[in-house]
Amino acid sequence: MLSNLPPNTVERLSLYRRRLLNFPFEEKPFIHSHQLAHLLKINPAHIRRDLMLMGFSGDVHKGYDIRKLIKKIGQTIDCVQVQKVAFVGIGDLGRTVAEYFNNTETRLKVAATFRLTEEPKTQFSDVQCYNISKMKSIIKKEGIELIVLAVPTSYAKEISKTVIAAGVKGILNFTSVHLEVPEHIYIEEYDMISKLEKLSYFTNK
Amino acid sequence: MLSNLPPNTVERLSLYRRRLLNFPFEEKPFIHSHQLAHLLKINPAHIRRDLMLMGFSGDVHKGYDIRKLIKKIGQTIDCVQVQKVAFVGIGDLGRTVAEYFNNTETRLKVAATFRLTEEPKTQFSDVQCYNISKMKSIIKKEGIELIVLAVPTSYAKEISKTVIAAGVKGILNFTSVHLEVPEHIYIEEYDMISKLEKLSYFTNK
Repeated sequence: MLSNLPPNTVERLSLYRRRLLNFPFEEKPFIHSHQLAHLLKINPAHIRRDLMLMGFSGDVHKGYDIRKLIKKIGQTIDCVQVQKVAFVGIGDLGRTVAEYFNNTETRLKVAATFRLTEEPKTQFSDVQCYNISKMKSIIKKEGIELIVLAVPTSYAKEISKTVIAAGVKGILNFTSVHLEVPEHIYIEEYDMISKLEKLSYFTNK
Repeated sequence: MLSNLPPNTVERLSLYRRRLLNFPFEEKPFIHSHQLAHLLKINPAHIRRDLMLMGFSGDVHKGYDIRKLIKKIGQTIDCVQVQKVAFVGIGDLGRTVAEYFNNTETRLKVAATFRLTEEPKTQFSDVQCYNISKMKSIIKKEGIELIVLAVPTSYAKEISKTVIAAGVKGILNFTSVHLEVPEHIYIEEYDMISKLEKLSYFTNK
């Protein structure tokens, strides 16, 4: 792992890898930054800068070696050991994410989902769904370190305290509630209400 | 409505309004940009620029009149008539969002949720849940224009085509699949896999 990359670079490296894993690199083993940029609809300058930041360079004529690039991204951003994720209150949305992580060589694994009301059942593939009353003990038992938090606002603060006390280090927060957390906890916010109001604005222009 | 605002400004205006609606403006009717910036953990220069872009100015000494600012944001970003939203496959995550929109004076309303497998039932408060086979007819009947799409990747392309054919104008896409859509459709992407890989990186530094 390279420990000083900017957040947006890490996010884009993850995106490049995912796109390249679906690229026919058996037949076309090399790609230029402008070609990858076109596939992802982003600025080629970002790509060149991101790859430079992790010390990866391409051939002036042939471009980047895709297989090496995929491997390099893994060495740069992946954790060394498996890290476990749980979804709290998110319903079916976790399914696509679990499909990706739990069937490939990635080091992230979706280990559990929790629901506010329901009784335990298997929600999708091999991921077990628990009632939220079991959350603390399951997080500890499974060693879950990342949480996707998507519960009604009135539950957000209490649940975030519980998961942090149980050992969680990172929270992807969908609740639109600002969470006060200790400094060593990493929070990534997503505010769906603002995104919908933006969507509304641009579809009414 | 002011029709030429940048996307990030619209998103932040939505956020300012939501935070200010929870501010005790009966007792403290004015706020300075640096105070609002502190509440939201963002750069005060962004706030000043965003409010200037919609032609709103404050008093040098007292700051911004909160009541007027909330009203001005509504006039600037809200659609004139009610616009309806539906969630496809998102489970409980829609609940918080519906709580906000369906109990206030906002012009966005959550009108329906759709699920891939389940039988119709009322999912939360007054929002009806339908099987996805009813999607096209309900979207047309209700006049739903915005969709939050959160289905497994293999369904993403087909469902987006169906909802666009039914009259949807904007899609908040959680599927991590790139959707090819006509030019008049507005798409906002959210890639949870990249966000989780970023979270993993920063909790392992």
